[in-house]
Amino acid sequence: MSLIVVGTMAFDAIETPFGKSDKIIGGAATYIAWSASNFTKPIRQISVVGGDFPKKELEDLKGRGVALDGVQIKENEKSFFWAGKYHLDMNTRDTLDTQLNVLADFNPVVPENYQNSEFLMLGNLSPAVQLSVIEQLKIRPKLIVMDTMNFWMEVALDDLKKVLQKVDVLMVNDSEARQLTEEYSLVKAAKKIMKMGPQYVIIKKGEHGALLFHGDNVFVAPALPLEDVFDPTGAGDTFAGGFIGHIARTKDISYENMKTAIIVGSAMASFCVEKFGTERLREITKNDIDRRLAQFQELVNFDIELV
Amino acid sequence: MSLIVVGTMAFDAIETPFGKSDKIIGGAATYIAWSASNFTKPIRQISVVGGDFPKKELEDLKGRGVALDGVQIKENEKSFFWAGKYHLDMNTRDTLDTQLNVLADFNPVVPENYQNSEFLMLGNLSPAVQLSVIEQLKIRPKLIVMDTMNFWMEVALDDLKKVLQKVDVLMVNDSEARQLTEEYSLVKAAKKIMKMGPQYVIIKKGEHGALLFHGDNVFVAPALPLEDVFDPTGAGDTFAGGFIGHIARTKDISYENMKTAIIVGSAMASFCVEKFGTERLREITKNDIDRRLAQFQELVNFDIELV
Repeated sequence: MSLIVVGTMAFDAIETPFGKSDKIIGGAATYIAWSASNFTKPIRQISVVGGDFPKKELEDLKGRGVALDGVQIKENEKSFFWAGKYHLDMNTRDTLDTQLNVLADFNPVVPENYQNSEFLMLGNLSPAVQLSVIEQLKIRPKLIVMDTMNFWMEVALDDLKKVLQKVDVLMVNDSEARQLTEEYSLVKAAKKIMKMGPQYVIIKKGEHGALLFHGDNVFVAPALPLEDVFDPTGAGDTFAGGFIGHIARTKDISYENMKTAIIVGSAMASFCVEKFGTERLREITKNDIDRRLAQFQELVNFDIELV
Repeated sequence: MSLIVVGTMAFDAIETPFGKSDKIIGGAATYIAWSASNFTKPIRQISVVGGDFPKKELEDLKGRGVALDGVQIKENEKSFFWAGKYHLDMNTRDTLDTQLNVLADFNPVVPENYQNSEFLMLGNLSPAVQLSVIEQLKIRPKLIVMDTMNFWMEVALDDLKKVLQKVDVLMVNDSEARQLTEEYSLVKAAKKIMKMGPQYVIIKKGEHGALLFHGDNVFVAPALPLEDVFDPTGAGDTFAGGFIGHIARTKDISYENMKTAIIVGSAMASFCVEKFGTERLREITKNDIDRRLAQFQELVNFDIELV
């Protein structure tokens, strides 16, 4: 069944201690689409790009089953651009430059043929834009998943809270969960977030894996311990894409399946960091994904009967 | 089969943002013994205490199956004392006071009736003391597990490396693994440590769980997400006690069983933090432990067939 993805499609310029990229393709919805398209089609993209966004990339996405009816192309303007530099530990990064460009006055329009989508993935964007998309849908999707970041908590908290009331799943990282709720314990933070709207809270912890909260239940997903993290850019969005891609493919929104979806998301994210930008996501095959999933199962498997 | 535990038996004074303890019983070997005695007996303790160490505590330990032949009691001296204060996040702590007392010139003596022990748990102590115990054993134990801390890497690195050559399992936390190897990646750090002697490396990550490395294999164990961490003191030692207790009970030193042992250690540590000092460890029953282990299984269990 169909999935709507809302988010940025943009240019990144990335610097790590190990290398530097030119201006490369990025943006939350780019990563989500490349990731999710391993599991489900069509992916109904909603975004905005400038005339400088490569037509080839749009063709490649179409080839992956991504519908572009909802992607506005503002020929005379430039795409969103972000430049960042990672610290030696690859966990923290500094933003060197952000040029909003077409994002500055982005008014998303949901095309008629996107109506009746079952799943909605709101990539990290201003809460006002996320809310606009929700409000344009005549039938509420079966599952609405929302990603956000600390920036919106600082500048648009009221809008953020409005969106939270309308979504089923919130994805944030641990420091964001703490900032949003003013709780240190992630258990307490998740409980508070569940009172704000979402019945499911996914807390991403980078190299420490991810937590899924639902009522009194909690699931702990591992991250794959790696020798080298080449470029972490887009890992969270790739995770989101794997998560929602699996949900959309199986059409199963139970807690049990959410756990599997998180493992799928984690597996996809582990590919993303292996090369610059989206490069690795463009290469991997179903075989690669199956083998990585088996690796994740091996990672956590233990025998309790021995106790 | 029997287990030798070497470590401190001491007094702690603990301050957290939520409460303050008086001078209470602590020390690595105290926590290890209370934890491991849920799984195996006898536990052959090697330590040193002063005349101020409560005779009742020694009786209680005897009642738990702990042999005290190797515990020197220096009646006219004082036991080791540590005072610490935890920060708001409960992850970091400051040492307010350390009084070595009897520990200053501790020369461990392995009693004759401790010979032929199958398992040796070297709690965090000076590497010279750990080495002395190994060298007094006429028959090398089946498995030697070693805990250490960053302090010894700073003041006794050569001695530490000597001990590493003689042990099978090293337990450290993530920052210590990085300090010891000058690697950021824990995978790379573990590989380097395995070249120093131990074939198994356990990297403890506090609230983020633990990693087990062995050759090219890696296992990721969760930590139980908690609403409140009341007192983290001794959690690492309690983990060690659960780990070695399970190994000693099952007499199985395979990689597969090590994974289970880590889960047991993690479950025990999750009890330790619930109250001050060793209080919770004194209360818990086999039922409590079984229930907590089932909780750990539930924490990570997912269905891969759905993919």
